[in-house]
This record gives sequence, structure tokens and C-alpha cells, in this order.
Amino acid sequence: MNVLIVLAHPERKSFNGGLVDVAVNQLVAAGHSVEVDDLYTEQFDPVERPECYVHQAMDANYFYPLNEQRAHYEQGSLPLDVQRELARLEWADLVIFQFPLWWHGQPAILKGWFDRVLVYGGRYSSRMRYDKGYYRGKRAVLSVTTGSPEKTFQPFGRAGNMVQWLWPIHSSLYYVGFDVLAPQVSYGIQGGGIRYQEEAAIMGHLERCKEAWSVRLHSLNTEQPIPFTGWDDWDDEGVLCQSAPLRWRLG
Amino acid sequence: MNVLIVLAHPERKSFNGGLVDVAVNQLVAAGHSVEVDDLYTEQFDPVERPECYVHQAMDANYFYPLNEQRAHYEQGSLPLDVQRELARLEWADLVIFQFPLWWHGQPAILKGWFDRVLVYGGRYSSRMRYDKGYYRGKRAVLSVTTGSPEKTFQPFGRAGNMVQWLWPIHSSLYYVGFDVLAPQVSYGIQGGGIRYQEEAAIMGHLERCKEAWSVRLHSLNTEQPIPFTGWDDWDDEGVLCQSAPLRWRLG
Repeated sequence: MNVLIVLAHPERKSFNGGLVDVAVNQLVAAGHSVEVDDLYTEQFDPVERPECYVHQAMDANYFYPLNEQRAHYEQGSLPLDVQRELARLEWADLVIFQFPLWWHGQPAILKGWFDRVLVYGGRYSSRMRYDKGYYRGKRAVLSVTTGSPEKTFQPFGRAGNMVQWLWPIHSSLYYVGFDVLAPQVSYGIQGGGIRYQEEAAIMGHLERCKEAWSVRLHSLNTEQPIPFTGWDDWDDEGVLCQSAPLRWRLG
Repeated sequence: MNVLIVLAHPERKSFNGGLVDVAVNQLVAAGHSVEVDDLYTEQFDPVERPECYVHQAMDANYFYPLNEQRAHYEQGSLPLDVQRELARLEWADLVIFQFPLWWHGQPAILKGWFDRVLVYGGRYSSRMRYDKGYYRGKRAVLSVTTGSPEKTFQPFGRAGNMVQWLWPIHSSLYYVGFDVLAPQVSYGIQGGGIRYQEEAAIMGHLERCKEAWSVRLHSLNTEQPIPFTGWDDWDDEGVLCQSAPLRWRLG
């Protein structure tokens, strides 16, 4: 299996970086091919804007992102960094996104990876999305760290239900066709003087998180993905049919 | 009232830009002071990283974002663009965030505005957050555009419940103390050859969206904000008490 690990953390020596090392070691030892896509080290530019393109393909005086993406995709003139990311995705059977939860979402550098890389016309269109998405057959999983402890991220916790924070990202991955696996969330990752626990307890906790991830990695290629609704479940206006079983799941 | 409008769209002549113009005209005519904070024009850098700081205040060999933010806040050496944004927020009574929904969230340039501007230590801490947040007494509202039509963003729509997409952003604003108003969502904003409707119908729709916004603007200073739970609702572990009324709201 070819595994792409997209890392979005400004410090390679961080715990997030450590989880990448765990994944590389475990997956390579298991015979898989692994590539690490370190967005910070590669200085990925997350801002979709005219300057990303050598020229504006549609209208030099008006920048409409979707049109530009489609035109440059069709003309083979997408930005080089976008082309590189697309080639990596083409190669991968499984994509692991490793990042800390910042303000209830991905760090901006990873948010912009979605904005710029998953190009309209090339990787999705009105017909090519959801369960007819471009990347169907490939798998994706989020490996996320949080500062606050697990209890506060439960449904009634003050930090908010983790399902809610990751749903926009999970939905984006499904939108382009990925089978999205349950995330690996490492809660309560403290450090640098901002902590809820004593040093020894923290160290033990971090080691247990790494251990849990190292075990989990070996089932990623066989796990059942998160269920999503698809084209057969929707009516002509894009609304879930009364008869769709997932319409009757709460939460 | 002092109103700050944070705009995150790469084309100033876009419909998003048009909604900003509507807001400026209406609010100024009503006697308010308005400043437009155009993140693209100002080339705001959304990536939190060591290079944002003139030096690493805590550890030259390890970049821990929260520690750096706190240290530079305390030393008065925050990045100049962050200082400028903080001054604008200080001035504002109401903040309007104008942006298109990209991949179920803010464009990266605005996501990074949260990552970089709302600095740890200065604008939030373990004690200074939620209903004890720094910006309590100030108001915030999202004005969001989507490409897909409204029906698909309803609870059973295939584009996903809009409440879910905006909840991470609403929660982030509440986290730093804002009173968060119901958003203004302009659905089905088509253009540039990507459309579900004929040209004349689109133009009429866009005008109606602008009209709705121009009316709405005049009630922003008196509307009731979205209810959130607060410190008095949580137990010692940060979990919502059984007796909290909002624990018994579904959805």
C-alpha cells in the first residue's frame, strides 16, 4: 500500500511530528511505501489567489477561483505545487492527515491545501463528487491532536463535540470520493509550560498516545469507513429521501 | 457604533466584495463608523510559523506556537500585522466576517487570521475564555456565500447542514467572548459559467440577497445572540451539568 502522510505543524520535532515518525516506522516495517508531505517544510502556500497562476486563463480583470482552477487544469498549467500534490494523491492508496486542532479546524496551511489542491473541474464537478468522487477507492484518515483533555471534547463537554469539529473535514474528503476512516484523536497533548498534569504523567500519556497510534495503523487498510449518504439517497433537489436509513440516525 | 468588516475573497469585484459595499453604504448612512479589513489586499499571511516573529522568545530550537504568542504578547513584540488586527478589534463594537464557504469553512487566509491574531495569553487563557472571554460585550456576525442552492444546505440536504459548517467558526468567536449573531447566508451565488439558473434569474437572485443584507444590517446592534453554554453550566471537569437547559436542546 502507498501511504501519503500530510503533516501540518510548524515544528517538526513536535508531538505531531513524532506521530508521523511512528507512522513511518510502523508502515515501512509492515512493507508499505510511505511519503511524508510536510507542508511547513515545503512552505506550501495556502492562499488561493491570482498570483498562484502564471496567467489568468479566463479573465485578466476578474479572478474567479473555480473557473481558473478548471481552465488551468484543462490546459495543464496548474501551479507546480498543486501539480506535485495531485501527483502524490494519485500515487497514494491511503492519505493520513496529521495536524493539531487549531480554532476547531485545520491549521490554515492545511485548510489552504484543500482550497488549492482539490481543483474544480479536475478533482470534482457537479457530477463527479460524493460517492462518484474522483478519489473513490482511496482511503483517508485524520490524526489529530488537542490541548484540552478528552472529557471536554465529548458531546456535553465545554470544548465541544469532536465529531462536530472534524465533520467539515471528513465531509470535504468524502466530497472528492475518499473512504474516510474514523479519526485517531490524541487528546490532552500538553507541553511547553501549558499543561494540566505533572511532567511524568504527561510523558506517560504521550507515550500511550503513540502506542495507540502504532497499533491502529495496522488496521487502516481493512477498517470500515464512516458511512455517508450518496446519490442514490437523494431526491432531485439534493435532499435525503425519507426512506434513507441515515436520515433516521440521530447525530 | 464602530464596525470592522473582515473580507476574505481574492476578487474585490466579487459578490462578496459587493456585500461589503452594501454594508459600508448602509452603516455609514446610519451614522456608524466602518473600517474594511481586506485580508487579500493587505496580503495577510495566514501561516503561524517561526518566521512571523523577529526572534523566538522561548526556545530558539523549538517552536511552540502558544508559548511564542504569549511571550511576544507579554513583551509587546507581536508581529506588526497581528498588532494591527488586534488594534482594529479593540476599536470595533461589531465585527462582520464576509467570506465564501470553501470546503465547509473559511478560506485559508481567514482561518489563519484566527490562528495568528487571537493570541494565547493576550486574547484567551484557561481562565479568560467563553463567557469570561476577552471580547465580551462586542458582537460578531458571519456573512457567508455559497455556490450550491439553499435547499441542499438544509438539515437533510446533500451539501450538509449549514449550522454544522459554521459551528466551528461561531464557537471560536464565542471562545474569545464575542456575542455571536445568527449568520447572514447568501445561498446559490453562481457566476462565471458555473450556474444552476439562467442569467436573468441569477441577477435577480443576487439583487435580492443584497437587499436582504442591507435590511438585516440595521438590526445587528439590537439582535439577540446565539445562546452558548458558559462557566456556570459546567462541572469541574468541563462537562455540561444535567440541569443546564441547553443540554436538553436537540441539534
